[in-house]
Amino acid sequence: MRTVQWHDGAVRMIDQKQIPWALVQVDLHDYQSVAAAITDMTVRGAPAIGAAAAFGMALAAYQSHADLLDTLVADLRQAAATLKTARPTAVNLAWAVDGMLAIAMNGSFNTTDQLRDALLQEAQQIADEDVAVNRRMGANGATLIEDGFTILHHCNTGALATVDFGTALGVVRAAQEQGKNIHVLLDETRPRLQGARLSAWEMEQAGISYDILPDTAAGYYMQKGEVDIVLVGADRVAANGDFANKIGTYQVAILAKEHNIPFYSVAPTSTVDLTLPNGSDIPIEQRDKMEVLAPYGTALVPEHYSARNPAFDVTPHRYLSGIITENGIARPPFFASLKRAVIGEPV
Amino acid sequence: MRTVQWHDGAVRMIDQKQIPWALVQVDLHDYQSVAAAITDMTVRGAPAIGAAAAFGMALAAYQSHADLLDTLVADLRQAAATLKTARPTAVNLAWAVDGMLAIAMNGSFNTTDQLRDALLQEAQQIADEDVAVNRRMGANGATLIEDGFTILHHCNTGALATVDFGTALGVVRAAQEQGKNIHVLLDETRPRLQGARLSAWEMEQAGISYDILPDTAAGYYMQKGEVDIVLVGADRVAANGDFANKIGTYQVAILAKEHNIPFYSVAPTSTVDLTLPNGSDIPIEQRDKMEVLAPYGTALVPEHYSARNPAFDVTPHRYLSGIITENGIARPPFFASLKRAVIGEPV
Repeated sequence: MRTVQWHDGAVRMIDQKQIPWALVQVDLHDYQSVAAAITDMTVRGAPAIGAAAAFGMALAAYQSHADLLDTLVADLRQAAATLKTARPTAVNLAWAVDGMLAIAMNGSFNTTDQLRDALLQEAQQIADEDVAVNRRMGANGATLIEDGFTILHHCNTGALATVDFGTALGVVRAAQEQGKNIHVLLDETRPRLQGARLSAWEMEQAGISYDILPDTAAGYYMQKGEVDIVLVGADRVAANGDFANKIGTYQVAILAKEHNIPFYSVAPTSTVDLTLPNGSDIPIEQRDKMEVLAPYGTALVPEHYSARNPAFDVTPHRYLSGIITENGIARPPFFASLKRAVIGEPV
Repeated sequence: MRTVQWHDGAVRMIDQKQIPWALVQVDLHDYQSVAAAITDMTVRGAPAIGAAAAFGMALAAYQSHADLLDTLVADLRQAAATLKTARPTAVNLAWAVDGMLAIAMNGSFNTTDQLRDALLQEAQQIADEDVAVNRRMGANGATLIEDGFTILHHCNTGALATVDFGTALGVVRAAQEQGKNIHVLLDETRPRLQGARLSAWEMEQAGISYDILPDTAAGYYMQKGEVDIVLVGADRVAANGDFANKIGTYQVAILAKEHNIPFYSVAPTSTVDLTLPNGSDIPIEQRDKMEVLAPYGTALVPEHYSARNPAFDVTPHRYLSGIITENGIARPPFFASLKRAVIGEPV
């Protein structure tokens, strides 16, 4: 079951807020609902929100009653603006929306219906391509995983974070498919607990050996020598290799360096933003403090208590052993290797 | 209100499992209940469980029907064995129980009632001394806190972790009493959330400016330059300065080093265990995985999911700027400075 797909004129997605308790799909019939589902994290994970936004643009095209191409394009521009502001950090959202808009503006269509169909086709291709890219990243990354490895993982980067298969957890999946005996330590990843709720659910489904850790315990297991490699995803990679990812990634990177443990980000080239020379300009989303004080509606403390809730952090490239892309593993210096990866040259 | 006290023939303690929702005291009428309250963390914090165990020994003395001193001492030995195994990591527990037992065995009593009264008096003194020691640590530590400082803190080391006033949060309290304008960032401290539930409650009571952080966000705020100093407690300090403290302390220490932020443990000399040359022999308690999967009874994920739950970690002394004791701030090399602190010489 794909995380995001087109179904009968609607965008169908797994409601990730209900995992691990229920596997429920919701059908969204207008792009505004798709944007809202991205904001409230019904769908999350950089590649998954990219695909969701692409389908959202297709939905906007069918939603529009425009008879004239110019009017349809104007409606699409409005949808693009709404979708792109649904969340600020992951670049895949803008990447997918801009790609859809570029098609709308290339002017080679005779009718609005031709454009509508072309947009749906493009969204389908973005979704299909995501699965193919994840498989290639999985194969590339699995070369780093030896039999008997314990892999530390932060947040969720599995099938749920993508259209299917996953990025960092896709590497784990690929290693398992190769018959390697592996164990995964899953940071629970407060405040939203993507590690405990989503990644553990995926490991249960896939039959991969795992343990959930409180985020406070990652260093403890590194100190005991129990972690062979750290794999994380990415929400946006700058040209120099600095990358934004789920809050807590930066400190896991520091811990890995302190213990001489290889630390890799697994990121499709759609996550690379060559317009940013470094990570300092990546916008960091600040979310509602209630996600900290009352996760999923259960109050841990009174709601007037003070809390901060940055959703992402930026890890400087110097902590990275490499970035696993679909076109190979980019190594330092990343300015050169990422550029090659993005244009599809061997890295 | 003291965290632990003697009241009308019983050990009265604040039920910390109910903070921040209710401030409730429980009266325990036998030492077995005191041991159980230590194990289930009704009372927690190294100094607080030391005092609780001392009162538990006094309670055991009154509980015993022995008419002969030898019989009473035998009963006390049994109580000591039970109390000392209630939790393994904090040395204050063994320190307090052994101190009580030493009194019982010094043989200068004519009647069992004399011994009983002497034990209660000793427990009272341990409790009173804890408050006095905390005040002195507060004064010593506050010399490090400048006006306008933001202090990062892990777990709970306040009045609730002690008989009153606190260790690391005692330093915060002392700085506030000196009129310094300070702000405290409180790691929520999964799995048991002592930072969010206990420390935030204490900051609310004391009117000290604070924010709760997910444990994943400490590095983010250090990277932004918002943290001036890190203060934590200790559950056991080895002779070389290695120390056990709440899980997650070790990684906060690494983060502080990486950002060149001063990192101090605030520990009374009752927490120093000179019999251990280094931290590798400190026993680390492993607790029930349900504390991770279902904190305070609220299931985050299905209960058959796998999780690990180490309650403490050991921070090597090389990460420490100093150890703030009641006899001064011990600095590296700790072998020498801690020994001076323990025997009460200026450090």
